Amino acid sequence: MEKGLTLWFTGLSGAGKTTLNAAVCGRLSDAGFRVESLDGDEVRRHLSHGLGFSKEDRDENIRRIGYVAGLLTKHGVICLVSAISPYRAVRDEVRRSIGEFVEIYVNAPVETCEQRDVKGLYRKARSGALRGFTGVDDPYEPPAAPEVECFTDRETVNQSVDKIMEYLESRLPCQSIAVHS
Amino acid sequence: MEKGLTLWFTGLSGAGKTTLNAAVCGRLSDAGFRVESLDGDEVRRHLSHGLGFSKEDRDENIRRIGYVAGLLTKHGVICLVSAISPYRAVRDEVRRSIGEFVEIYVNAPVETCEQRDVKGLYRKARSGALRGFTGVDDPYEPPAAPEVECFTDRETVNQSVDKIMEYLESRLPCQSIAVHS
Repeated sequence: MEKGLTLWFTGLSGAGKTTLNAAVCGRLSDAGFRVESLDGDEVRRHLSHGLGFSKEDRDENIRRIGYVAGLLTKHGVICLVSAISPYRAVRDEVRRSIGEFVEIYVNAPVETCEQRDVKGLYRKARSGALRGFTGVDDPYEPPAAPEVECFTDRETVNQSVDKIMEYLESRLPCQSIAVHS
Repeated sequence: MEKGLTLWFTGLSGAGKTTLNAAVCGRLSDAGFRVESLDGDEVRRHLSHGLGFSKEDRDENIRRIGYVAGLLTKHGVICLVSAISPYRAVRDEVRRSIGEFVEIYVNAPVETCEQRDVKGLYRKARSGALRGFTGVDDPYEPPAAPEVECFTDRETVNQSVDKIMEYLESRLPCQSIAVHS
């Protein structure tokens, strides 16, 4: 049975997780891999209606995404997950349970994310209209040893994607993948 | 991309869903198909911690199982789901959302299920220790037009499994499957 893989994009809101996920997804799909992109917001709607943003609820949400990613990975799919997933322990728990797991730290300073503020959430968080927002009044624990780290404040999207694809060459032995677009 | 399929086993607790699911899963796996069995109880633990057994919570639980089954089906897996799934409307909703969907009504009279009472749940429900138990004090809406109906009070497991496999011959065109064990 062909081996799958989970690519887990973690980082602050606005760091660029969804952008990199979509770009890597496109490259892998073009290279003939079976891919599935799971976006944190969408998955939360499908699997975690009723859960909030306490540590406990966030962790439960991540476990559910991890369960689904694990099933897809088991069946040969490359599953790309974007989720803030601020707590290290539960990310590591998901890593252990899936096995074939690549952690991609989408790293940008909170100031940069806040300037972008694509969804207007930082503004809401700063005004107090939104409580428990990661990076503002809720913690983010960076990965201790991510397989790939992208610095989206000083790399172009293509540079970050190339870095991820280069790493994947060592993890996806069955097919050759075009690293440079 | 190879087409997957969801086989949805619905019926009362004790009707034989898990038994038939496991047997069909074995046959399909032997025939070389990619299969995944999702059991209602196990999935509830992974995806629906905190949900209860009200109509609303049961429906939400079924939607979540349907979401996962749909993802696997999309990626070429034959996903076998066992879940009481007592409400017709949400089963039909899941059918529409997955598309490649086979509803298997595991039909046994409640009296038969109660005599079996493998998990001791009917006894608890009759004594009042368990409320909202399907078939006792909670409704079960039988499928209006299931693709397959098994009568587990008067068919052997093999007879029921053969019936399911015979139906599947028309839905799984890529590989020949051995119908009779």
